[in-house]
Amino acid sequence: MSALRIGLVGLGTVGASVWKNLRTQENLLTPRCGKILRIEKVAEKNRARARQADVPEAQLVDDWRELARDPSLDVVVELIGGTDVAADLIRESLSHGKDVVTANKALLAEQGRELTAFAAERGKRLLFEASVAGGIPLLLALREGLIANEILSLHGIINGTCNYLLSAMTSRALSFQEALREAKELGYAEADETLDVAGHDTAHKAVILSALAYGFWPALCEVHTEGIQNVDPLDLHFAQELGYRLKLLAILRSHPKRGEIEVRVHPTLLRKGHLLSSVRGVFNAVAVRGDVVGETLFYGRGAGGDPTSSAVLADLAFLARGKAVSRELPPSSGRQTALTLRPMAKILSRYYVRFLVEDRPGVLAEIARIFSARNISISSVIQPEGHRGQTVPLIVLLHQSQEADVQEACRIIETLPTVKRPAILLRVEDLEGEEGWSS
Amino acid sequence: MSALRIGLVGLGTVGASVWKNLRTQENLLTPRCGKILRIEKVAEKNRARARQADVPEAQLVDDWRELARDPSLDVVVELIGGTDVAADLIRESLSHGKDVVTANKALLAEQGRELTAFAAERGKRLLFEASVAGGIPLLLALREGLIANEILSLHGIINGTCNYLLSAMTSRALSFQEALREAKELGYAEADETLDVAGHDTAHKAVILSALAYGFWPALCEVHTEGIQNVDPLDLHFAQELGYRLKLLAILRSHPKRGEIEVRVHPTLLRKGHLLSSVRGVFNAVAVRGDVVGETLFYGRGAGGDPTSSAVLADLAFLARGKAVSRELPPSSGRQTALTLRPMAKILSRYYVRFLVEDRPGVLAEIARIFSARNISISSVIQPEGHRGQTVPLIVLLHQSQEADVQEACRIIETLPTVKRPAILLRVEDLEGEEGWSS
Repeated sequence: MSALRIGLVGLGTVGASVWKNLRTQENLLTPRCGKILRIEKVAEKNRARARQADVPEAQLVDDWRELARDPSLDVVVELIGGTDVAADLIRESLSHGKDVVTANKALLAEQGRELTAFAAERGKRLLFEASVAGGIPLLLALREGLIANEILSLHGIINGTCNYLLSAMTSRALSFQEALREAKELGYAEADETLDVAGHDTAHKAVILSALAYGFWPALCEVHTEGIQNVDPLDLHFAQELGYRLKLLAILRSHPKRGEIEVRVHPTLLRKGHLLSSVRGVFNAVAVRGDVVGETLFYGRGAGGDPTSSAVLADLAFLARGKAVSRELPPSSGRQTALTLRPMAKILSRYYVRFLVEDRPGVLAEIARIFSARNISISSVIQPEGHRGQTVPLIVLLHQSQEADVQEACRIIETLPTVKRPAILLRVEDLEGEEGWSS
Repeated sequence: MSALRIGLVGLGTVGASVWKNLRTQENLLTPRCGKILRIEKVAEKNRARARQADVPEAQLVDDWRELARDPSLDVVVELIGGTDVAADLIRESLSHGKDVVTANKALLAEQGRELTAFAAERGKRLLFEASVAGGIPLLLALREGLIANEILSLHGIINGTCNYLLSAMTSRALSFQEALREAKELGYAEADETLDVAGHDTAHKAVILSALAYGFWPALCEVHTEGIQNVDPLDLHFAQELGYRLKLLAILRSHPKRGEIEVRVHPTLLRKGHLLSSVRGVFNAVAVRGDVVGETLFYGRGAGGDPTSSAVLADLAFLARGKAVSRELPPSSGRQTALTLRPMAKILSRYYVRFLVEDRPGVLAEIARIFSARNISISSVIQPEGHRGQTVPLIVLLHQSQEADVQEACRIIETLPTVKRPAILLRVEDLEGEEGWSS
């Protein structure tokens, strides 16, 4: 099978995750792409990083130029950050006939127009899904999924650090400095927080979103950018009182008749009822309004090695699938073993069961015994008070159990003389990721 | 400029919207695709529908076979629904060398595996982004954006009718029959509601999602499917008490080590804290958990002519852009006029302004006069009580105004002797689509 030969520059958080995940996901990606995605060489001067990432010496070089000029490579992945060297690296790689994948939002915000033009002139691709909103496939949605839409507006929470800080200040009445200290301890803020809290990082991403939505690269210096460093807890308090929450938003809006685009970044009050106002902590969420599709929203982890590498790998997969990108379904998701449907009886779930019972001592004990005999544990019970001898509802919540066992227990319970009707059974899903949403 | 020549079969809600929106969006789509997307012929027996959609007689035919066999067409769009005729139509069109776009979830759930294989054998495309979750580009996200991920789980609210009914029953304590009557009056439920409320429509979409996520088409008859027709308001009440909401979910989950996939549809309690539990009314939302990306969520309108046609047009645009799909940025979003950045001073927004003022009679009147002189109206005021002569905060919320005017008014107000500090100014965004989210 042929391979997409990749040169990776930079083994920071994202680079190390790309290195790791290209291996862990190889069994999925190879059949889905019809090609092996193989990192041939890694450029990283910091040997300690390379050792930590488990990159073999033989694949390691010091100088990125070696990768940019290596005729055996198809793609260079730029993950060193910064703007000067990264720009040279990208131009040099494109000049030597390579496609380039990058997550470098600062560079794109500054030179995106020139760099994409530079790539287009050479018939090469410069892909950057990972530059905005981490693992959320937002650029793909704008460019392809919503291609038939004029993007009327876009409201994005796209800096996790700021959202963490504002969430902490709002929910726990911390001052900005207290929240910042905590965020640094938890690794949610950089040692130098300025890029994030002053809104610059959000502005970088807003520029890229404008390019995607409108083909229009605003000059970064002309994008109105206010950060959150001066947000006063008093305003958070009043915002609450008024039914609002404060969020740092990137806002884009088109005025097609005027040929004008708004691009701005500033703290914004959002009504508590709106979904965006409920996005808490380091999560990202972007509400996109198209003239045909109406309101859409995309949510997920906007930073971190793994989520960001998911986007880098998607760009690499796009290149691997080649110019003749297929939209065919993945062949059995790239597994060797044949798939079967898990029978309903074998699923694991939590359950809510409501019985109608005679209000007598011992009923609950008997029901509990029947569940317990099948290793099903009850997590809570509601038994509204009634009069002795009346029928009353009895609700039990069950810990994770197998469907077949729960069904069997219910059938037996239904035969008890004190149980008056077939049980009402509902499954309970406890989804992960709940921390990103307020109730 | 060359054209993608389209034959459209069916002028129901979605078909009529595709006809309409292909015209309204032509100026965007042509430059974005590098090709004109042109409907050459429409097959629709119902002449009244054709007249209502404004389809010229000359482009209208009775028999879909004419389109399937027309050598001048590149694509056939199947929007007649049902399974028997639609299957014939799709096979016939593919056999005659056409790509096919469809939104027919019932057909795909029944024969998707056979039909996609039939298309692949002929080197043709069968695209169906519109078949699940309306305008949300969910299939694109699964197939391309999250390609590097094993989809660990997917939880989807993908039937707007059911979600409307459950929302109405929960928030307004209606019975199922009362809610259903209301939904029919509002056009949110079909005359025959069975397909929706019994969960079949959700099951159809669950089968398609399984194909996208896993390349695995479960047999529809083996997918556990429970509807909401027997949901008892009493259970909604208790769910509330327990901190849960009830939603009809499609649930997919992979068990890679076992080679097993769960696909099931049933009413499910979700903790109120989770975002999915907050999705109200006819909206759709799908939470997707990938092993690399973590938790993501996609939200939008899952039905209706316009949102669904946005997805149909995206599939057509994909075909128009051809096998050499470009990921280049749209050329200035396909507009003729050059774009400029709207200056911050000219944006319109609502505002929150906090002043620190001396607590004296007349202060508010003076401030209000200065705003009013610039045509800025105040929508509400908070003025906490203080002691005469003390400084107290004064908060005003402003109706939509221009930034420059508000800034100017604030600068003038700050010169008043009773105003003690520079104003704190925050912008307020009232997003549309709030009805889809609970607070």
